Amino acid sequence: MANKTIMKKTVLTGIICTIFAAQVQAGSELLTLINMLHENGTIDDAQYGRLMDEINANSKKPVKQKETLQMQNDKEPAIELKIDKGGIQVKSSDNEFSAKIGGRVQFDSAWYNEDGAEMGNGTEIRRARLYIQGHMFHDWGYKLQYDFTGAGKAGIKDAFITYNGFNHIQLKAGNIKDPFMLQEQTSSKFITFTERSLLDTFASGRHIGIMASTKHKHWTVSAGFFGDSVSTTTAGKDEGWGTSGRLTYAPINQKTRVVHLGIAGDYRETGDAGTVSFKQQAETHISGANIVDTGIIAFADNTLKLGAELAIVEGAFSLQSEYIWTTVERNGNSGLDFDGWYVEAAYFLTGESRNYNKGKFAGISPDSVVGRGGFGAWQLAVRYSTVDLNDHEIEGGWANSVTVGINWFPTSTLRFSGNYVNVLDVDGGAYHGEEPSLFQVRGQWAF
Amino acid sequence: MANKTIMKKTVLTGIICTIFAAQVQAGSELLTLINMLHENGTIDDAQYGRLMDEINANSKKPVKQKETLQMQNDKEPAIELKIDKGGIQVKSSDNEFSAKIGGRVQFDSAWYNEDGAEMGNGTEIRRARLYIQGHMFHDWGYKLQYDFTGAGKAGIKDAFITYNGFNHIQLKAGNIKDPFMLQEQTSSKFITFTERSLLDTFASGRHIGIMASTKHKHWTVSAGFFGDSVSTTTAGKDEGWGTSGRLTYAPINQKTRVVHLGIAGDYRETGDAGTVSFKQQAETHISGANIVDTGIIAFADNTLKLGAELAIVEGAFSLQSEYIWTTVERNGNSGLDFDGWYVEAAYFLTGESRNYNKGKFAGISPDSVVGRGGFGAWQLAVRYSTVDLNDHEIEGGWANSVTVGINWFPTSTLRFSGNYVNVLDVDGGAYHGEEPSLFQVRGQWAF
Amino acid sequence: MANKTIMKKTVLTGIICTIFAAQVQAGSELLTLINMLHENGTIDDAQYGRLMDEINANSKKPVKQKETLQMQNDKEPAIELKIDKGGIQVKSSDNEFSAKIGGRVQFDSAWYNEDGAEMGNGTEIRRARLYIQGHMFHDWGYKLQYDFTGAGKAGIKDAFITYNGFNHIQLKAGNIKDPFMLQEQTSSKFITFTERSLLDTFASGRHIGIMASTKHKHWTVSAGFFGDSVSTTTAGKDEGWGTSGRLTYAPINQKTRVVHLGIAGDYRETGDAGTVSFKQQAETHISGANIVDTGIIAFADNTLKLGAELAIVEGAFSLQSEYIWTTVERNGNSGLDFDGWYVEAAYFLTGESRNYNKGKFAGISPDSVVGRGGFGAWQLAVRYSTVDLNDHEIEGGWANSVTVGINWFPTSTLRFSGNYVNVLDVDGGAYHGEEPSLFQVRGQWAF
Repeated sequence: MANKTIMKKTVLTGIICTIFAAQVQAGSELLTLINMLHENGTIDDAQYGRLMDEINANSKKPVKQKETLQMQNDKEPAIELKIDKGGIQVKSSDNEFSAKIGGRVQFDSAWYNEDGAEMGNGTEIRRARLYIQGHMFHDWGYKLQYDFTGAGKAGIKDAFITYNGFNHIQLKAGNIKDPFMLQEQTSSKFITFTERSLLDTFASGRHIGIMASTKHKHWTVSAGFFGDSVSTTTAGKDEGWGTSGRLTYAPINQKTRVVHLGIAGDYRETGDAGTVSFKQQAETHISGANIVDTGIIAFADNTLKLGAELAIVEGAFSLQSEYIWTTVERNGNSGLDFDGWYVEAAYFLTGESRNYNKGKFAGISPDSVVGRGGFGAWQLAVRYSTVDLNDHEIEGGWANSVTVGINWFPTSTLRFSGNYVNVLDVDGGAYHGEEPSLFQVRGQWAF
Repeated sequence: MANKTIMKKTVLTGIICTIFAAQVQAGSELLTLINMLHENGTIDDAQYGRLMDEINANSKKPVKQKETLQMQNDKEPAIELKIDKGGIQVKSSDNEFSAKIGGRVQFDSAWYNEDGAEMGNGTEIRRARLYIQGHMFHDWGYKLQYDFTGAGKAGIKDAFITYNGFNHIQLKAGNIKDPFMLQEQTSSKFITFTERSLLDTFASGRHIGIMASTKHKHWTVSAGFFGDSVSTTTAGKDEGWGTSGRLTYAPINQKTRVVHLGIAGDYRETGDAGTVSFKQQAETHISGANIVDTGIIAFADNTLKLGAELAIVEGAFSLQSEYIWTTVERNGNSGLDFDGWYVEAAYFLTGESRNYNKGKFAGISPDSVVGRGGFGAWQLAVRYSTVDLNDHEIEGGWANSVTVGINWFPTSTLRFSGNYVNVLDVDGGAYHGEEPSLFQVRGQWAF
Repeated sequence: MANKTIMKKTVLTGIICTIFAAQVQAGSELLTLINMLHENGTIDDAQYGRLMDEINANSKKPVKQKETLQMQNDKEPAIELKIDKGGIQVKSSDNEFSAKIGGRVQFDSAWYNEDGAEMGNGTEIRRARLYIQGHMFHDWGYKLQYDFTGAGKAGIKDAFITYNGFNHIQLKAGNIKDPFMLQEQTSSKFITFTERSLLDTFASGRHIGIMASTKHKHWTVSAGFFGDSVSTTTAGKDEGWGTSGRLTYAPINQKTRVVHLGIAGDYRETGDAGTVSFKQQAETHISGANIVDTGIIAFADNTLKLGAELAIVEGAFSLQSEYIWTTVERNGNSGLDFDGWYVEAAYFLTGESRNYNKGKFAGISPDSVVGRGGFGAWQLAVRYSTVDLNDHEIEGGWANSVTVGINWFPTSTLRFSGNYVNVLDVDGGAYHGEEPSLFQVRGQWAF
């Protein structure tokens, strides 16, 4: 970054500084030696007395040194303060401590072309988050992230401690995202469309637990053991728990060429609650209307979800696809199988490449920045997604939809998006036979 | 500004600095001992010589310490850190990026002299807000402000993006205050009394939308198009929307002399909800009792509000007045007309002037600061306000009240206020004929 | 204005820097001399051995110096930025302004061995707090602390203004903790176990009010007058109010030896609500099950609580005990007396001492830090607590429990705890005769 270059090039002339150094006292070994020599008679009483006087006198002399500090530019500052990516970043250059304050705001507006049930045009603040994140004492990390659109505990997102003192293995404990599903691992700041695909009905979200992961350029493995979500309160009932793991492999991982493969599994027991449900809106959020919805599935003992991921980046073009299969085990009733998949393709008209980093996608830095004489990055995208929540007597609905989107990134911290979603078909459930469509816009700042 | 010039010369950069600390020399007592032993013949000349050589050699060995310091020089701008107005401000001196963290806390206590209905003495945290605000890539700005006294979305206040790259025209998108009513445009940190006047029943508040404004020393124009409020959720119903605009003109705008004139209009459709209501407490908040209240007005299609503003600053004296007229259009029923006005006068005993800035009032910097040997700024104020919510079959009540207040500003960041409110009369509605009075105090820090 | 002039002249120049000065080792010339004297026979083998041992011992003693360098390229240092204790700290070096951003996250997991009523295993984010705290214009302080596990006002913790311009007396106004009970005065970051003892049923918590306190090395006095809690809303009813005071005396207050004595009283009127209740979980929080619970006590006019405190630190060992007696005055019914006490002992296996500071306990800095080659601080603790909520017709229950705990402090900012709580007996109330036990773990970052 330009800022960093400036810092590295800056060289400082010498400045005067006064150091009150600790007094250089007689080491205790010298005193011992003098006492020995006195006892041995090597030095006489008068000599001994003179030495003791001198030691006493010296011990009262403060050693005040005036020194010239020669400053030379090297790698990093001691306390480094940065703002060039938005937010406020503070770091000690010995890498012992850091802290960053950042956040995101997404404001949306949606217009619905209903086909039967009313969906409700409107606006909303989709997310309004602040976080503080950093590390301390070299090996430890921490984060607290809050979404102000949620009330109380429901707003707590990432809230954890990490330990990074092992070679290549990171331990994490607290409220963390289960390692499952590529579109979930990728931050909502960086997903291609305003909302994740229909497949998000199978998302695991965050739970309180512990996770170990190892991340390399070409592969990552993460596995965790989790209790329930942060907003679940027991009220005398045992909460649910789960375990999940994810393995990704990127045979090609270059700056503008990526092939990503992933598999993941997520097993959860429902605890004393004994229920699960799956539902999803039409790749929108303002309406609140779930075009597929199993309702509450009673006597559910556990769920097992398996997922497969594929993503490709080839210059300005990118492709991403996932398939999830989910089975629900019920007490005293047959098991239920649901599944779904999506495939999305995107293209940067302005030539940027989607950023891939250790098993997930990160943000875009436009080549040309609005505010520095540029026009930002422009991206077009299309997605097909489908999900099937019909099985046995459960009629949650089968649905598929096509979404086309345009993204404008005026800077690395800003994004404006427009999405048109067309629900092609709903088969079963409350929205059976309906084909609503919608247009949604978003403004976002995030860092 | 001199301030900025200096800032541009400063730079915050990291450097490695090498300290050539004073050599840890042989304490003089050791030298004395060696001389003694030589004189005593305990060590011979050769040994003595070797010791002297070693001492000389050691005295030339610098003890080099590597330390990291954070410094600035006068060559290039980078990062500026400030705290002198409270909060934490970070700015890149090339004006590309900034961030400020600030907030406010207001704690109140109120005692009611009821006249019929119980009003409920008590205390409350009236507002407890934090915000992060800044700009990035020169042309863009952002803000997120949250009030912790609200739960979930209800606490989201300012949350927007701005674009400042046009000459004199600012674009703003997100959750923003409609440009309507002088007492609403003026922050709750800076209003003259603890609560705004009865006229606030016609306040528009914040909505999610877009706004364009141009602000000059002697005039401002703002106009926006808005959806509904951040805490409205559609639940399958179309939200309301509106548009509003405000024009202000200050023929005189000097530091201690101001004449401000303003007109504004606000039109809103109610959406599928189809209702509006107007209500207001007696210029207090703790009680929760609304002395005027139309209840829910059904079949309301839209509201149109028109306002006129006048404000004068003449040295320590200031005056402010507004009139608002509101009409509600109802489906299948006659329209409703409500209105109200207030006039307030204030005087700084300590000689300060109210600060006017581009169409609204800002905070006070006392000439004499408590903590620097001073006594702060002291202000007396009086206000008359009245509102009429009676029309046709709607009997929301007509009320008027007189408020006297005293404000003490020990510093520019602190304020302590005492208000006595006397409701002169209520005509119609649940509080018909009652004349309650109340005393309210507030402590506030804000920056 | 002087203020602004100073600000314009100052730039970001102040820096705190820690210098680890080179160890003052035995100069090589001393070693040479000793060898010579040994060879010459002036000192014998035994003496030589003792000197060598001393030199070796001394060479392992690092001479660590903490220095503050004040760098200036202008008249005076202006802003200091620190991160070495976690969080972000900014200070103007003229001591006029400061701000610190900090927080804490505690995540818990609990397993219950119920004995009758179901208690509900689970996880939770126990506390997730951020705060901004600082001072301004030399004499004034402020704080806003929010706990994101609470919704809306319920999450507001410390939120106040302080005035420190008097000699030795601090005034505080806002939402503050009543000065009552040692385990409540000690932050939840620093209590010995994951939860406070059963005695916390008598905790006063925070109220909106004013407080004066004077704090000295050997004694403190605090007294305040308070309205109701921040989450109480009047709804036409007068809120409650109270007054409380606390006196502590520490005849011994050295770094590793402390004797603390304290007495405190808390009087509250219930206001128009006219009710009180006392209840407590089994030194856990996830379950939500109160093993003692008076239910709502109607027609309660006021409560008076009196407490006595004792705490001792002797090196790595510490002891803490409190007794609280509470009486409830009822209109038209006999008064009620409740009481309880606890005693806890703790021992640092790694030799640290509990930190005592002006009437309460503060955090631990491990001698050996994980991330710097160390293993942290380890502490074992045991507690007995009992509370009696049975009186007259009120059968809230009498209960006692024993808790054993282990704490690991890898750094001064991190803590991992495991607690085993065994409820010995419950006599009366809904849990009569039950003896549940539980195991609870916590991870915490805090600064």
